[in-house]
Amino acid sequence: MKLNQQGLLIVLSGPSGVGKATVRQALFNTKDHNFTYSVSMTTRKPRAGEVDGVDYYFVSEEEFENRIKQGRFLEFAKFVGNFYGTPMEEVQRLLANGDEVVLEIEVEGAMQVKAKMPDAVLIFIAPPSYDALKNRLFRRGTESEEIIYERLEKAHRELTLAAGYDYIVINDDVENAADRIKAIIRAEHARCRRSLNGYLQLLEENSHE
Amino acid sequence: MKLNQQGLLIVLSGPSGVGKATVRQALFNTKDHNFTYSVSMTTRKPRAGEVDGVDYYFVSEEEFENRIKQGRFLEFAKFVGNFYGTPMEEVQRLLANGDEVVLEIEVEGAMQVKAKMPDAVLIFIAPPSYDALKNRLFRRGTESEEIIYERLEKAHRELTLAAGYDYIVINDDVENAADRIKAIIRAEHARCRRSLNGYLQLLEENSHE
Repeated sequence: MKLNQQGLLIVLSGPSGVGKATVRQALFNTKDHNFTYSVSMTTRKPRAGEVDGVDYYFVSEEEFENRIKQGRFLEFAKFVGNFYGTPMEEVQRLLANGDEVVLEIEVEGAMQVKAKMPDAVLIFIAPPSYDALKNRLFRRGTESEEIIYERLEKAHRELTLAAGYDYIVINDDVENAADRIKAIIRAEHARCRRSLNGYLQLLEENSHE
Repeated sequence: MKLNQQGLLIVLSGPSGVGKATVRQALFNTKDHNFTYSVSMTTRKPRAGEVDGVDYYFVSEEEFENRIKQGRFLEFAKFVGNFYGTPMEEVQRLLANGDEVVLEIEVEGAMQVKAKMPDAVLIFIAPPSYDALKNRLFRRGTESEEIIYERLEKAHRELTLAAGYDYIVINDDVENAADRIKAIIRAEHARCRRSLNGYLQLLEENSHE
């Protein structure tokens, strides 16, 4: 019996290289939840295999800046020379539809979302150690050494930002991390501030029978 | 990897007859958690099969009232002519030991616990309907009709007290309810206010390697 019919806005964030995308993928592979991924917008060039409208909406810097001026982002950030943002309209449409919307975004963006939508569930995906993060970034091999060190420096700062989140989930193992997130989502649906109205409605309906 | 080493104080409460004891039992039957049950104290007479020190500590009204005066209860209530209470020392000892302590108590008691230990996790076990509650009380057959109606009247008032809890879990099916509670416990361990210190310690330790 589900008391909260509305979808949750779930924000997966954490330092670059922590494996946010892999955790999100493991989450979406489970059949027992109705997750929807809100596609982000970026000005960075597509990597090999990335598809416009699936991995990202790839747009020009000019278009991105116009959308900022029009207030059409739930959050956005400039990161290693490129803009990344979450189009507001898409998230609102999905939430209104009752979907569970998962955002996979950078740390500054997560704080913007919390400010604009306090009901969002912020999950900080953390590396089991700083070394694990370093190894992961080098293994990926998609960026130059200079960019990796730029990312690591940023990551180091971001690790201390976990305090602003609702939950911390260590990505020691991708399936474990996804399982913990599923438990968080189940628990959040049962939280009194989300479920109380549904519960009172249920009692009301039953007493008319 | 577990960030929060301390046990949780988990309060299972809800109207009389909702099946709190059955849900607690299902919870304790799972092997993957280290639950401890804090035994309550009562002045009511033992029912057939109930064992002193296991189901309750059965004490006289005089002893119970002495303990109230000495401030030795985390919570207590008088209910259908009998006192029920949670001995403070026992809970403190178990929590200090790192155990996950489960209290199964009445609604007034739960509010007293929240006031004394704000870190406690309050779970309101709710019936799927008012009729379900009524049927359950009559089926149990341990009380006279007068007492059942007294309980039902009280239960009706208590249903509206769910607002003061952290979570609402419908006992539509005992295994479902226990599963939801396990998800809540997992999520609560990951909550930032409980896990942040453990996480910062972890990073600290790693950087010394």
